[in-house]
Amino acid sequence: MKQYSYLDRIDTPEDLRRFPVNDLKAVADDVRDYLIDTLAEVGGHFASNLGVVELTVALHYVLNTPKDRLIWDVGHQIYPHKILTGRKHRLRSVRRYGGLSGFPKREESEYDLFNTGHAGTSISQVIGEALARDVKKEDYRCFCVIGDASMTAGMALEALNHGGHVKSDCVVILNDNDMSISHAVGALNHYLNQVITSNFYNKSRRLWYKFLALLPLVGAGLRMFSRRMERVMKNIFIPGSLFEDLGFRYIGPVDGHNMEELVEVLMRVKHIKGPILVHVYTQKGKGYQPAESNPIKYHSVTTFNRKDGTFVGKSEQPTVSYSQIVGDTLTDIFSRNDRAVAITPAMIEGSGLRSLADKYPDRVYDVGIAEQHAVALAGGMASGGIIPYLCIYSTFLVRGLDQLIEDVALMRFPVRIVIDRAGCVGPDGETHQGLYDIGYLHAIPEIRIYAPTNGAELKAMLLHMEHDEAGPLAVRFPKGDATVAELNGPLPDVTDTKPERIGEGTDLAIVSIGVMKEAALALQAELKERHGINASVIAIRWVRPIDLAALNDMLRRVDAFVFVEDSYRFASGAMCLLEQLDSDAKGRHIQTFAFPDVPIEHGTRGEIFHHYGISVEAMREFLVRHPKMKRESGKVSGRAISL
Amino acid sequence: MKQYSYLDRIDTPEDLRRFPVNDLKAVADDVRDYLIDTLAEVGGHFASNLGVVELTVALHYVLNTPKDRLIWDVGHQIYPHKILTGRKHRLRSVRRYGGLSGFPKREESEYDLFNTGHAGTSISQVIGEALARDVKKEDYRCFCVIGDASMTAGMALEALNHGGHVKSDCVVILNDNDMSISHAVGALNHYLNQVITSNFYNKSRRLWYKFLALLPLVGAGLRMFSRRMERVMKNIFIPGSLFEDLGFRYIGPVDGHNMEELVEVLMRVKHIKGPILVHVYTQKGKGYQPAESNPIKYHSVTTFNRKDGTFVGKSEQPTVSYSQIVGDTLTDIFSRNDRAVAITPAMIEGSGLRSLADKYPDRVYDVGIAEQHAVALAGGMASGGIIPYLCIYSTFLVRGLDQLIEDVALMRFPVRIVIDRAGCVGPDGETHQGLYDIGYLHAIPEIRIYAPTNGAELKAMLLHMEHDEAGPLAVRFPKGDATVAELNGPLPDVTDTKPERIGEGTDLAIVSIGVMKEAALALQAELKERHGINASVIAIRWVRPIDLAALNDMLRRVDAFVFVEDSYRFASGAMCLLEQLDSDAKGRHIQTFAFPDVPIEHGTRGEIFHHYGISVEAMREFLVRHPKMKRESGKVSGRAISL
Repeated sequence: MKQYSYLDRIDTPEDLRRFPVNDLKAVADDVRDYLIDTLAEVGGHFASNLGVVELTVALHYVLNTPKDRLIWDVGHQIYPHKILTGRKHRLRSVRRYGGLSGFPKREESEYDLFNTGHAGTSISQVIGEALARDVKKEDYRCFCVIGDASMTAGMALEALNHGGHVKSDCVVILNDNDMSISHAVGALNHYLNQVITSNFYNKSRRLWYKFLALLPLVGAGLRMFSRRMERVMKNIFIPGSLFEDLGFRYIGPVDGHNMEELVEVLMRVKHIKGPILVHVYTQKGKGYQPAESNPIKYHSVTTFNRKDGTFVGKSEQPTVSYSQIVGDTLTDIFSRNDRAVAITPAMIEGSGLRSLADKYPDRVYDVGIAEQHAVALAGGMASGGIIPYLCIYSTFLVRGLDQLIEDVALMRFPVRIVIDRAGCVGPDGETHQGLYDIGYLHAIPEIRIYAPTNGAELKAMLLHMEHDEAGPLAVRFPKGDATVAELNGPLPDVTDTKPERIGEGTDLAIVSIGVMKEAALALQAELKERHGINASVIAIRWVRPIDLAALNDMLRRVDAFVFVEDSYRFASGAMCLLEQLDSDAKGRHIQTFAFPDVPIEHGTRGEIFHHYGISVEAMREFLVRHPKMKRESGKVSGRAISL
Repeated sequence: MKQYSYLDRIDTPEDLRRFPVNDLKAVADDVRDYLIDTLAEVGGHFASNLGVVELTVALHYVLNTPKDRLIWDVGHQIYPHKILTGRKHRLRSVRRYGGLSGFPKREESEYDLFNTGHAGTSISQVIGEALARDVKKEDYRCFCVIGDASMTAGMALEALNHGGHVKSDCVVILNDNDMSISHAVGALNHYLNQVITSNFYNKSRRLWYKFLALLPLVGAGLRMFSRRMERVMKNIFIPGSLFEDLGFRYIGPVDGHNMEELVEVLMRVKHIKGPILVHVYTQKGKGYQPAESNPIKYHSVTTFNRKDGTFVGKSEQPTVSYSQIVGDTLTDIFSRNDRAVAITPAMIEGSGLRSLADKYPDRVYDVGIAEQHAVALAGGMASGGIIPYLCIYSTFLVRGLDQLIEDVALMRFPVRIVIDRAGCVGPDGETHQGLYDIGYLHAIPEIRIYAPTNGAELKAMLLHMEHDEAGPLAVRFPKGDATVAELNGPLPDVTDTKPERIGEGTDLAIVSIGVMKEAALALQAELKERHGINASVIAIRWVRPIDLAALNDMLRRVDAFVFVEDSYRFASGAMCLLEQLDSDAKGRHIQTFAFPDVPIEHGTRGEIFHHYGISVEAMREFLVRHPKMKRESGKVSGRAISL
């Protein structure tokens, strides 16, 4: 087994803090080495973790964690932290079912304070921790680390504004790893950092007062103006005026890969009162050449060859991802309709919009991590008479729900809402689940919700949306693939709100929403084959509006029915639709196969579905044991119990 | 009838634009006079409208509305705009059922672009309109007006950040009416405004360059540094560096009651390219002495006496509002538990927290209009070991839903969520409805939802929450009152999740959620008395968790049941609970009396309930005509049809 001469001696931050400061660089090198070795083997979030190795080492060295509070925004940069807090040997299991989470996780370690995943929460959390400490009259430090992209989230700005006002002692570390500007600004920043730590500031202040004397000021305004001047003075040397305006003391910028400088600044910061922002600049992918040159490609990786960075086991298949279908179809639409536009909150790549954005840079708007704005902006554009496609992940749309209600739906604006990663998300786990959307969308007045059963229907719906001005229309689909063949065939009609009935079986109806049609069909086949149960499948695409009369009619023909869904049960199509059914249909509902009312952990989609009883096997087992089904299956065989 | 010599000649902005600029002050005086006269008679939002009279006149004078786009943030300052755009005679009907909305309303006028109500949306909307104009290659102006309080909303900051980046031509007018600082800063601002319009800036620039020459700069950094200096230079005279940092050109501050200055600046601004922020300072309540001295009291008024500002028809009753119960009960709790804290997003007064905040300023956190931060902050505080009560209106909690899921519930933090204004809100109308919360809360893993039936239960629950650490717990209640007597009696037990059954009737069960128990009891009595229908009432307080076995048992005893709710039907307790019931219970459900799937307009709660068939009379009429009930009522009388 490979030796890591420093890291092998570290299991906890206590161990780390026993090293002399001069050894910290070597420790960091070991952590980085370990990270690359492990992720090459198992995959995971990569480039952002490489960028914070030194910062993580320095923070645990300087702070007395876990008594001192250390909070990581988003959290996909948490791997070095996990390595240093007793979990290095389990890193191999990251993002796997039953293994370490790819994000901070309280259940894993007392060093993880918040289970995060969505961006921009850490400043609120660090202020909350700081105020709690003050209320308890205790004494410890509260630090958080937030990336520059997360800083554009409205809630981060709300929190800065509040933090600067309440003045509780806390430290926000801005991890600035924006590749596009770090080289250009870096040199000046480095210079400015030297300036602020020297006494140059004090010397030049005298010149300022001379300048001030020239201003024609009188009476009461003078003192305020002077105070303002002090601040402006500071602003000359510090690019952090925005933070100072919001009441935070700005310190930096600091080279986030210079261990000595980091430790020195953090040591100093520990003893300053009030809210502080430390501006650290780092490089994504630092220390691994392929990731340094292309941090986006190496943001999240599958297993790869350490030597040359090539990914292992990626084979070319004749499939197209749902996200890619969105990108391709929008490219079609954009090419003939110059009023079509697309909006994404920082998900150009994930939403399959890269080539669309390259081709139509003036009509694809990446607004940053700003979902509230993204949704209201789409409403504004619809009001202005153009055709906005709002491309967003299900989990992130929750941040824009108020705007979707108030600023889109109540005015019936025809915003095309393209909801990717709906349903169970797999390895990202509980903080990214798209299991709520059917429930919350359903409550919005007059909104329409379409859940395609395959890629061809997704494509057809995107094309239909272009000319649909009747109000907001949402299409929701999971991470998944379609076959190329399917997409090249004739496109289905997507306007009929009547559910599709497949088979004539009356023992049971298996009602599916969207892509769960496939599981429903498999269940139908297995029930017939193995237990002689004659089931029909009722495939629902339109959750709202839906042809209720047709659905009632279909359900009246069967003895019992179940729903099969990729949603929380408490946000399911079953829940939404049952209340609307005729009384006699309602009474035949015996089960909703959906996710129960608990946080749903990470793993592959298959593993998670099976764990919660939504796999074909698990559903079949449940059904053949059900009193209602036993009677039915008893008709043809006694095999039900002997499964 | 009173004459308004200028306003009488104005029905539309076209009419206004025919006046010479020198007459505009007189026009504004007329508008203000008309506003005071009308609102003294009918009530409505008041102080904020008085503050924007000149601004509204100036904007419609300078812009070519409605072709030019003029967007009002929040919208309770829309009355002068309504007066000038063809609706002055209908102002008398404002906020009344069937009358003018108290907010912008597209259905009322082509001059109203967005139906607003929640704060901070207008910058997103103006950028959306501007980008739509650019995509269409058309030519008109896009302006919005936003208050300084709304500017703290995260989405407004997100939008500024994006607007400064896309650089489309648009104008954001910051209506700065913060009473607490306007006097202090105003004098300096006025001075600075003179500075910027004079050539003082240019003169002093020379001095700057002398100063610059003293800086030890070299090589490549120099040009960037110089550019930075230019900006810093500007910052000395302009308090808008934050906006400049975000890419907006800052202009101001402008005296929002000086008509000449306003028109001049707006004329100039119309011809400047790129995103612009115009900083206008105004005074809430301007021109009406009682409102100027106490703008909070006069924010929204009932009818009052114009001469002395006394409110008419306010009588002292032996009742306490639900909001006041919150304030009083928290004061109790705070006095003995120094770890209890309260958080409100800019709703100290509305949430009944004024005296609590005065008594415990260090433990009541008003975070401004920043719901996302408010919720995540509460999570941070719970993590830190103190006891946060999050006091928030139902309609505004939607903005913090993502944080409630991700940053509170998934970690099971014991945040006490106190949801005021749940259900139908009455005069504020569609943008403020609290009709969604049961639906969206229900989808959150493991959250608990309690809907008290009266003030005593609300008080008991608030007291219970103090020591309940099992996870997030939400109590939801409408605007309403309790009797003092009720509160002084012994407090009810609030821990039993079993629904309460009242009466033994088996013809029908009337299932109520929370305060609708009262309507259910009245309906029960009327059905018995007038139609001989024997109904029982099943009063639900705990929506989650709920004793399902008990509920199933109660429902199995009756022939049919209905739900009676103060929610959207598609976010109702009926919807949430039916899916969970036993099959034979499910089939007895015949109706959910709740709000249908459309925007719900303004009016009194009574008017709105009746309009949507949730009044006792309307429900009774429906039931006696129902096939299932006709059979039942046929048992005792033939009166069912003759109602």
